[in-house]
Amino acid sequence: MRPMSLLNRAALERHLPILQWSRSYSRDTLTSDVVAAVIVTIMLIPQSLAYALLAGLPAEMGLYASILPLVAYAIFGTSRALAVGPVAVVSLMTAAAIANLGITDPVQYAAAAITLAFLSGAILTVMGVFRLGFLANFLSHPVIAGFITASGILIATSQLKHILGVEAHGHTLPELVSSLWAHLPETNLYTLVIGVAATAFLFWVRKGLKPLLLKTGMKPRLADILAKAGPVLAVAVTTLIAFAFGLGERGVDIVGTVPQGLPPLTAPRLDLDLIAQLLVPALMISIIGFVESVSVAQTLAAKRRQRIVPDQELVGLGASNIAASVTGGYPVTGGFARSVVNFDAGAETPAAGAFTAVGILVAAMLLTPLLFFLPKATLAATIIVAVLSLVDFSILRHAWGYSKVDFAAVSATILLTLGFGVEVGVAAGVALSIALHLYKTSRPHVAEVGRVPGTEHFRNILRHAVETDPSVVTLRVDESLYFANAAFLQDYVYDRVVKDKEVRDVVLMFSAVNEVDLSALESLEAINRRLADMDIRLHLSEVKGPVMDRLKRSHFLEHLTGRVFLSQHEAMQTLCKGRPRAAE
Amino acid sequence: MRPMSLLNRAALERHLPILQWSRSYSRDTLTSDVVAAVIVTIMLIPQSLAYALLAGLPAEMGLYASILPLVAYAIFGTSRALAVGPVAVVSLMTAAAIANLGITDPVQYAAAAITLAFLSGAILTVMGVFRLGFLANFLSHPVIAGFITASGILIATSQLKHILGVEAHGHTLPELVSSLWAHLPETNLYTLVIGVAATAFLFWVRKGLKPLLLKTGMKPRLADILAKAGPVLAVAVTTLIAFAFGLGERGVDIVGTVPQGLPPLTAPRLDLDLIAQLLVPALMISIIGFVESVSVAQTLAAKRRQRIVPDQELVGLGASNIAASVTGGYPVTGGFARSVVNFDAGAETPAAGAFTAVGILVAAMLLTPLLFFLPKATLAATIIVAVLSLVDFSILRHAWGYSKVDFAAVSATILLTLGFGVEVGVAAGVALSIALHLYKTSRPHVAEVGRVPGTEHFRNILRHAVETDPSVVTLRVDESLYFANAAFLQDYVYDRVVKDKEVRDVVLMFSAVNEVDLSALESLEAINRRLADMDIRLHLSEVKGPVMDRLKRSHFLEHLTGRVFLSQHEAMQTLCKGRPRAAE
Repeated sequence: MRPMSLLNRAALERHLPILQWSRSYSRDTLTSDVVAAVIVTIMLIPQSLAYALLAGLPAEMGLYASILPLVAYAIFGTSRALAVGPVAVVSLMTAAAIANLGITDPVQYAAAAITLAFLSGAILTVMGVFRLGFLANFLSHPVIAGFITASGILIATSQLKHILGVEAHGHTLPELVSSLWAHLPETNLYTLVIGVAATAFLFWVRKGLKPLLLKTGMKPRLADILAKAGPVLAVAVTTLIAFAFGLGERGVDIVGTVPQGLPPLTAPRLDLDLIAQLLVPALMISIIGFVESVSVAQTLAAKRRQRIVPDQELVGLGASNIAASVTGGYPVTGGFARSVVNFDAGAETPAAGAFTAVGILVAAMLLTPLLFFLPKATLAATIIVAVLSLVDFSILRHAWGYSKVDFAAVSATILLTLGFGVEVGVAAGVALSIALHLYKTSRPHVAEVGRVPGTEHFRNILRHAVETDPSVVTLRVDESLYFANAAFLQDYVYDRVVKDKEVRDVVLMFSAVNEVDLSALESLEAINRRLADMDIRLHLSEVKGPVMDRLKRSHFLEHLTGRVFLSQHEAMQTLCKGRPRAAE
Repeated sequence: MRPMSLLNRAALERHLPILQWSRSYSRDTLTSDVVAAVIVTIMLIPQSLAYALLAGLPAEMGLYASILPLVAYAIFGTSRALAVGPVAVVSLMTAAAIANLGITDPVQYAAAAITLAFLSGAILTVMGVFRLGFLANFLSHPVIAGFITASGILIATSQLKHILGVEAHGHTLPELVSSLWAHLPETNLYTLVIGVAATAFLFWVRKGLKPLLLKTGMKPRLADILAKAGPVLAVAVTTLIAFAFGLGERGVDIVGTVPQGLPPLTAPRLDLDLIAQLLVPALMISIIGFVESVSVAQTLAAKRRQRIVPDQELVGLGASNIAASVTGGYPVTGGFARSVVNFDAGAETPAAGAFTAVGILVAAMLLTPLLFFLPKATLAATIIVAVLSLVDFSILRHAWGYSKVDFAAVSATILLTLGFGVEVGVAAGVALSIALHLYKTSRPHVAEVGRVPGTEHFRNILRHAVETDPSVVTLRVDESLYFANAAFLQDYVYDRVVKDKEVRDVVLMFSAVNEVDLSALESLEAINRRLADMDIRLHLSEVKGPVMDRLKRSHFLEHLTGRVFLSQHEAMQTLCKGRPRAAE
């Protein structure tokens, strides 16, 4: 019975990581986690309100999305420091997805957001169960970097309307800019003053406050925490000003009534039409959210020599989103800034997330009446300052210097995201990366090689001083052979030998060939036949184990006019025998 | 002036291949070409009528598609033996494309076919001019083989209605079968007798006639030609029977009035809506037609040590299709059977095609009244017998034995083509091939290698008896490193070293790495940092020229904790110095 139950326990722990870390949970861990939770809570309250606003949802939905989802992640997630909740990019994608459906009624809009959270949760969980985490790898680093930068610009631009106090709509940069421009004359001065002041204050907090506090001799950690509390201070001060001067009656947009109490129980709308329309956006939100979250989690885990399990992370984030959908929330994922704060504040286990949830719950139950006079401009300032740190054009320079193909992928992603919105941007970025990769592999690099004198090593005749034999041509094919490049190789070999009457043997050096698919096999057979017609033998060298296993299952090796050599050195020694001039 | 005009002449000849072969045109060549043209004309008349029927078009459009397009190909094409005209698969695709638009009115239907020919011609020409012929390589051999087989089945099934003399519709196998089944009771006995007799006769001609003629002592070439004339005989005999017994009044569907005279001048409908709807089908028809045509042309060219130029072939086929669209034709391409007949009959230059065009023109001007009583069942029999030779399930067995991935691509293509029609079938086949290829490369084979004793050659420790050093781990990565597998490598290296405390050096052997994109570069930087944290140095060996050039443009080599070795042998000699146990 013992080994069986051990096995079950191991399997259970794999699916419920909470069982692992909770066993060794101590009083010290508790203290660390609680301290981290308090700091993250202070940071998360204004962020939750602000990102709900960005998503086009009522402020309380941001709070609801920061309660049960955090508990769900604490149970199923594998990262010790990840802080889950509403984040900027996913909020923007949520707004774009629902706007595309043409929904404007607030009740319908909220229902769609809840359904989106549910779909996203279901997709993430299914991906986790079927170990489809590798799909996220098809989002290349340049595409992600370009997408995040462009999203940051879109988000910041979309918030300018709150700073100016005007109406403006749109989900692409041209739409947003032209809409803002058209409404510019309606700017509300009170709103503008509050908005600009809050933005300036928050920028100063981010850049100038910490050094100042350190100069006064404050401990770095305390200085850090105080600097993170900047947005809370901005919220408190501007709310008081709006209340004291009755700015709500002077045209300043304020948050208004935020319901007080526990998150409501909600259910996704199981309307097949709605689900069909939200499926693709939900998939994109899931993958983008997963990629962002996993990259933070991995960075933080590596710092403490811990590991995260990507497929289990999918389950953790899936559970969080399903939790969001049943408690009035909207799509969530692991946030970059708040996870770093959580980590720096000393969070040791996912329990810190659960304690944060308690903090936000308390806020939802007690503090919401205080938010009535909070100007939306303050929340917009919070968002702008947060997302401008996402904007980083250095990837363009970096990619330009390294590879024009990567540069094309980044710049297309940035331009298409800005010009046509987040969904087109991501889809085009992924499609372009794949297309460019396929294009490159469809015209592989082929090098003619010779021996580096005095070694058994063979290199490109154009790059190195090497020894060759005029009757033996060795071509090193620098790519796996598959349908897209099978015809190319056929033409290449033929072109090389027709112009050279001395050739009697062609060796294809397969050290870089990792696959030969059926199309390529047929091309190799054609090459073998054609060369035989010209009295030239075809040989292979350095064929890898898996490729050789595959070739043995076909009739190719029986028809091959030459031999298969273990190494290129052996091939040259055999083929150049009796011709010492070339062999040495 | 001389070299300049020579240069111009070479460029002109590249774009107008007729200028090359016409210079050395002799009386002997003329005789060969005329003989071949007569034989191909006899074969092409019934085929043109039959394929027009298959495409849902009036019989004369098949003839029109076999006149000017052949002349256009003779001017622009590079193959000496390719016979262009209406073919079975492209006719089926034409029918499917127009039916998808819901067009039933015959005039509109014909106009759509002419527009499709124009679009296809324009696409092919543009692809030729911009040298986009490589796009066809993304149709893998298994996908093409599966598609052709499934199309053959669809075509044969679609013709059964003519054999039975009933109405039946559909563009997928389930639709066709259920429609035929529903109308089975309406079978016309006269039609059935003619249809079955013609089919049986044509099968016998194909399989039994030639051996019989050879037995009588006839020369093989003459026997071959007589056997090819079978369809003409079937047409003549069944037409006479239908005329003599007044079968048209007994419910046998006959061809009826076929206009006599020159092909009409026509123009594509430049209706943007229609063009937008036909663009994707036209692209598919273009690519499928091009792939079929080029593979025949290449096979025949290789037999006579000639070459074809794929990008110029695109221009040739493009010109043919544009020619078809201005003379009342519909999409055409190079046909397999007729090109082989043309080749075997001795065609030496594309002029044979132009002579064939004259033959069909004569038929269109003089013979069409004779076709009035021709039963459609006879044409259906011609089609069935021709396309069943396309059906070849051996590709399934072949692919199963060689690679399960290729098998998946073939079987999906066959099933989806049969179940959902030609367009879905091709698109799904291509998408699946690409997806499976990407999946394979996203989880590359990584081998830990050691030295084959007494050589400088390094192979997989699991497959060969090799020498290794416990403090040095060498991993040979059998794939280019790009975004889809960058994360995989990172995990792999980490997993390998955490379990082994002895490791002090990791060598990544890059002999099979043909590319390192920006995503992979970032992963290499992460690996380098992580290993540095564990006091392990990272080295590279056998980095190829193009990859090294790329790495030098980044900061990676400055941060690399270890070295880059020219060869793996050098790496081991350096790293294992002072530890002779391992080095020898």
